[in-house]
Amino acid sequence: MTSRVPLLNKITHYIVKRKGKQMRPMFVFLSARMFGKPSESTFTAANLIELLHTATLVHDDVVDDAYERRGFFSLNALWKNKIAVLVGDYLLSKGLMLSIDSGEFKLLQIVSNAVKEMSEGELLQIEKARKLDITEEVYFDIIRQKTAVLIASCCASGASSMKQSDDTIEKMRLFGEKVGIAFQIKDDLFDYGLGGKIGKPTGIDIKEKKLTLPLIYTLNNCKKNIKKSIINTVKNHNEDKEKVNEVIDHVFEHGGIDYASQIMKNYADEALQLLQEFPDSEAKNKLHKLVTYTIEREK
Amino acid sequence: MTSRVPLLNKITHYIVKRKGKQMRPMFVFLSARMFGKPSESTFTAANLIELLHTATLVHDDVVDDAYERRGFFSLNALWKNKIAVLVGDYLLSKGLMLSIDSGEFKLLQIVSNAVKEMSEGELLQIEKARKLDITEEVYFDIIRQKTAVLIASCCASGASSMKQSDDTIEKMRLFGEKVGIAFQIKDDLFDYGLGGKIGKPTGIDIKEKKLTLPLIYTLNNCKKNIKKSIINTVKNHNEDKEKVNEVIDHVFEHGGIDYASQIMKNYADEALQLLQEFPDSEAKNKLHKLVTYTIEREK
Repeated sequence: MTSRVPLLNKITHYIVKRKGKQMRPMFVFLSARMFGKPSESTFTAANLIELLHTATLVHDDVVDDAYERRGFFSLNALWKNKIAVLVGDYLLSKGLMLSIDSGEFKLLQIVSNAVKEMSEGELLQIEKARKLDITEEVYFDIIRQKTAVLIASCCASGASSMKQSDDTIEKMRLFGEKVGIAFQIKDDLFDYGLGGKIGKPTGIDIKEKKLTLPLIYTLNNCKKNIKKSIINTVKNHNEDKEKVNEVIDHVFEHGGIDYASQIMKNYADEALQLLQEFPDSEAKNKLHKLVTYTIEREK
Repeated sequence: MTSRVPLLNKITHYIVKRKGKQMRPMFVFLSARMFGKPSESTFTAANLIELLHTATLVHDDVVDDAYERRGFFSLNALWKNKIAVLVGDYLLSKGLMLSIDSGEFKLLQIVSNAVKEMSEGELLQIEKARKLDITEEVYFDIIRQKTAVLIASCCASGASSMKQSDDTIEKMRLFGEKVGIAFQIKDDLFDYGLGGKIGKPTGIDIKEKKLTLPLIYTLNNCKKNIKKSIINTVKNHNEDKEKVNEVIDHVFEHGGIDYASQIMKNYADEALQLLQEFPDSEAKNKLHKLVTYTIEREK
């Protein structure tokens, strides 16, 4: 990954240093190991997906005007928008070239589709944040596209790298999709302080006018006047800490947290059921643990 | 190109409406027609490259904080950074999927390389704008990467879409690269008002601390005190219209415009010489005219 451009070397060094939980490569490798010893293709897949994931994080930095990510300053704060866009494009094209040079057609298909779905999902979310007319159905569309598609791609490309049948690849894709949806619901629950057990509610999603499952459920199951007041807060007083806290209280009282937690568990269970269809193995056990971690993690 | 996301449909409609000179598809089709009737692959290539070019323009909108592009408001001014990044990513992935679904491996290789080179070239330019230590050699590296690579890709993929030999594809690539370099020198000359014949100098590049060929030549061919004063203006007084005009005067007096114009003509001539190696055809005549247009255009 070294380049002739000194600025780029500094930046990629910085990106490599701040690597996160590495969950995506784990899903690729474990999905491959369900079917034997990981192949050259498995490594290419893990590489491409991690580069793609990093590219989207770098682009997110532009996007959200985020000043911090994973404890470091964001690329954006350090070097401005212009560079973040270019570095994201550079990382993505490097990943594509790696796969093209290895002749990985199927992988390219999986991954380009993921890029398309992810950008579409984010745009759908922005649109809905403007109109505040989001339904549960649209919520699931959004999180399927913006989060679950990438984990689904990890599992599908892991299986694909082991030359499995289309049927098996599709089963692993669906497994990843269900884990991904559970993962995002968990992330959305963090906004309410870990379902009330630990940590304080942050209310960041409400501030950004993102309606997530706990709130959508509450809006559909409260009296008209409460609904009106919640919408009014999100629309016009989303910076008012006190009013945002009132919304959070409504969500707890109306069972929005319990409801979302239950749906999350259902998705995780469905994922585990899909996993049961495969023969036992060490990789299967580890994937099982990864699913459990996804819904029980505290950050 | 229609999508389920209404916002995205509005935006792609807006992008299609403001299409520019369409030079890139012209290079693809004419390069293909040098070797017969354009194939299905030629259309895929033209599609992908135009989508990629549009994606980079959309990302440029983020990048340059440009408020206008081709007479319309930029995406950025209308919808903000966040959306521009996502739309660019969406367009690029759509283009990739088209080519993958058509099994166009060679095309993907050409195009991914172009994305990589272009982002690297832009980053190199930013770096040099900071340090102001650019040499002629680095200037040519930058314009080869940020501009010429895409036109080179058009010509290479046009030939490749007609199943030509690697040798022929390489010759067409080199032809496109030389035209692209001439194209960018022409663009850089516009900063000085069409080489002095028509139009007023804008000095935008100087304002952005981009040292282009006319200025680089001047810096290498003037007295020490003038060099010092020019560097001082670019570094510290790049917003001062009067001082920038002094720099422009120095460039004219030292023959920077004549020098850059001559180099531009040399590149165009080299391109035309390469073209002469192919048999005569209508497409060849039109490519010849396109090269002439590139260096004679007035916008």
